[in-house]
Amino acid sequence: VTASAAETYSAPGYGVENLPYGSFAPDGEDPRLGVRLGNVVIDVRGLLNGSGAFGAPGRGRTVSAEALAAVAGTNLDRLLAAGRPIWREVRAEISELVTSLSAREIAPNVHPLAEVALFLPFTVADYVDFYASENHAINAGRLFRPGQAPLTPNWKHLPIGYHGRAGTIVPSGTPVVRPSGLRPEPDGTPSFGPSRRLDIEAEIGFVVGGAAPSGRVPLSHASEHLFGVVAVNDWSARDLQAFEYVPLGPFLGKSFATSISHWVVPFEALQHARVPSGPRDVAVAEYLDDTSAEPGGLDIVLEVALDGEVISRPPFAGMYWTSAQMLAHITVNGASLRPGDFFASGTVSGPLASQMGSLLELTWGGAEPLRLASGQEVGFLNDGHEIVIRAEAPGPNGTRISLGEVSGRIIGREEQR
Amino acid sequence: VTASAAETYSAPGYGVENLPYGSFAPDGEDPRLGVRLGNVVIDVRGLLNGSGAFGAPGRGRTVSAEALAAVAGTNLDRLLAAGRPIWREVRAEISELVTSLSAREIAPNVHPLAEVALFLPFTVADYVDFYASENHAINAGRLFRPGQAPLTPNWKHLPIGYHGRAGTIVPSGTPVVRPSGLRPEPDGTPSFGPSRRLDIEAEIGFVVGGAAPSGRVPLSHASEHLFGVVAVNDWSARDLQAFEYVPLGPFLGKSFATSISHWVVPFEALQHARVPSGPRDVAVAEYLDDTSAEPGGLDIVLEVALDGEVISRPPFAGMYWTSAQMLAHITVNGASLRPGDFFASGTVSGPLASQMGSLLELTWGGAEPLRLASGQEVGFLNDGHEIVIRAEAPGPNGTRISLGEVSGRIIGREEQR
Repeated sequence: VTASAAETYSAPGYGVENLPYGSFAPDGEDPRLGVRLGNVVIDVRGLLNGSGAFGAPGRGRTVSAEALAAVAGTNLDRLLAAGRPIWREVRAEISELVTSLSAREIAPNVHPLAEVALFLPFTVADYVDFYASENHAINAGRLFRPGQAPLTPNWKHLPIGYHGRAGTIVPSGTPVVRPSGLRPEPDGTPSFGPSRRLDIEAEIGFVVGGAAPSGRVPLSHASEHLFGVVAVNDWSARDLQAFEYVPLGPFLGKSFATSISHWVVPFEALQHARVPSGPRDVAVAEYLDDTSAEPGGLDIVLEVALDGEVISRPPFAGMYWTSAQMLAHITVNGASLRPGDFFASGTVSGPLASQMGSLLELTWGGAEPLRLASGQEVGFLNDGHEIVIRAEAPGPNGTRISLGEVSGRIIGREEQR
Repeated sequence: VTASAAETYSAPGYGVENLPYGSFAPDGEDPRLGVRLGNVVIDVRGLLNGSGAFGAPGRGRTVSAEALAAVAGTNLDRLLAAGRPIWREVRAEISELVTSLSAREIAPNVHPLAEVALFLPFTVADYVDFYASENHAINAGRLFRPGQAPLTPNWKHLPIGYHGRAGTIVPSGTPVVRPSGLRPEPDGTPSFGPSRRLDIEAEIGFVVGGAAPSGRVPLSHASEHLFGVVAVNDWSARDLQAFEYVPLGPFLGKSFATSISHWVVPFEALQHARVPSGPRDVAVAEYLDDTSAEPGGLDIVLEVALDGEVISRPPFAGMYWTSAQMLAHITVNGASLRPGDFFASGTVSGPLASQMGSLLELTWGGAEPLRLASGQEVGFLNDGHEIVIRAEAPGPNGTRISLGEVSGRIIGREEQR
């Protein structure tokens, strides 16, 4: 008996139960859609075409023309536009091929991960960032608005969100140049210069597919549009943000860069990670009421490392609002959806000090620096600091589903020139 | 002497000194880039190709291959990406052709405006909305935050802005469906339903071209990226906005629709409209300091009509912040620019009651309804109401430059089904 490609290549977090999508290019070749299995990337179009030397003559005929067209692009864009029936067909076909064929049979379409370039997995249409962790909202409220009630009166009635800058979403590994802007000074007059309070936000992001020209996607239809998830680092300059954000919200404090992981894990791979969302203590409007729906939470655990040392493990399972609620909220006013729309959860913070998803919270506004094993004391990010956020969820039969990692190193403006 | 095409077709506001760009399609044909002259639309690619029957053999050779490629798309996208030298070349060539050729010579590329379909003139990348009128900011501050200082402490230090939803920018004439969402009720518990305070915001929008991958476009380079202007109606649901906007800014109250005019007037057509910006009384950071630059204001006057009756004439000349300052601000933190980025000024309001750019201000939060000539009392917008915003600026030699109009009629959700 010959081992299947899945058996040959699977590695923890990247078995056949995961199969996340990304955009890759073998050395000197054009970008294309890939799927990750262990530490190899499989050329999806090549695999599904059933052509060439991998030894499955005629297989191509079982795949619809729509599915073949949807995987023929440079990234996920065409598949996102194709809609959920095609998402299912493509995933099922990939899954069957890698379990029924041997590594040798699919070899022409296999590339070692270490030998390919990776790109942003899809073209971002509109980007919305939410604020869906109650622990984070309470902590941020205390730090940004001391003396006031930390949660604003609207917080439990709707998932608060705002539009971010789609054009500055970058793939994992992209260096982040320290932003400059106006920083509040004690005398009330701002000074201009590099941010002194550069921070991270560990989040989970949701990639939207299909189109809803008239908006109003009810909770019951959210899964038609929720294609997959990524890990997100929403870099934040807390000083710029603090000076600018009243009354129209964050702008320059967030718009310089938002990093996402290279691999989009399909929602289909997260069925075993479904859990009830965090408990809610205020009744919500019907369009947000998921009490009779299937569990909308996801048991994803994030891990934040600074220069290689884990500084936090935020649990996504405790989030107050679910991805389906966020999607229903974005569209309830009639706002249309496009393929490639993207929204993120906002900082994921658990109730414990070891579960907070930002340095703002981990150091309580910089007042209580972290002491790393190296002896280094860290308030906010220094030039040279590298942040890596990883995320993982349970898969079937005790397996794990990795959401990969999103990394970024801070560089000063001078370094960039 | 045969009259030139320009003499034959020019109409007030749309003479050869204007020549705004749009995307149009003759009946049954594909969309293409057009330029408006009076009440005709000229197919730009056809004109510049110098081919066919219009009688200027060999003309095409004077146009660069880059320019020909830049006008070959379905809309402005390729021209925006081509950069300013190509913008100048294309405009100069169009201008020379329509003044040197007769109407008969360019006839194959001319279409009566009434016989073409018009589309969004460019693909919107990221959309930012500012808040650059001091009069508007003071009025809105008084209405949204009674009892507090109307201008927040940051207002005169930076042009406050936030990202809006690029995917719901629609062309003039698109009906606007009344949005639903959570509305504040006197007892503090919100109710869900159609907005009761649906409003307009009369604004000027700026279309960005070229790319700045590292951001940081200084004031002195802003003109390299400022391609043109449009009239904007940033529809606003004041009740949804009031409930949701603290602390992360407007979201559903704005994201359902933003209408823009069909025609993008090039900055080159607005050289005679340049005026100093409104007086400033607080020193600003160097990246915003335009005291030694050429005047950055624009003498554009808007006109707002409700069901055909003019209700306001907001003057853009008095805006506190200029388009160059807004662009410098967007990018000062290193945020990249892409061709098709778009930003709007925020509501344009003058100091007089007859110059306010929103119903919020014109009716003082609905407390003082407008009395129309028809006898109708108007607080906020009813279903069936139609808003038309027009804008105009001075051109050379006493001519006028029209920014066209942006119109929209409110329809109820039931009507839409």
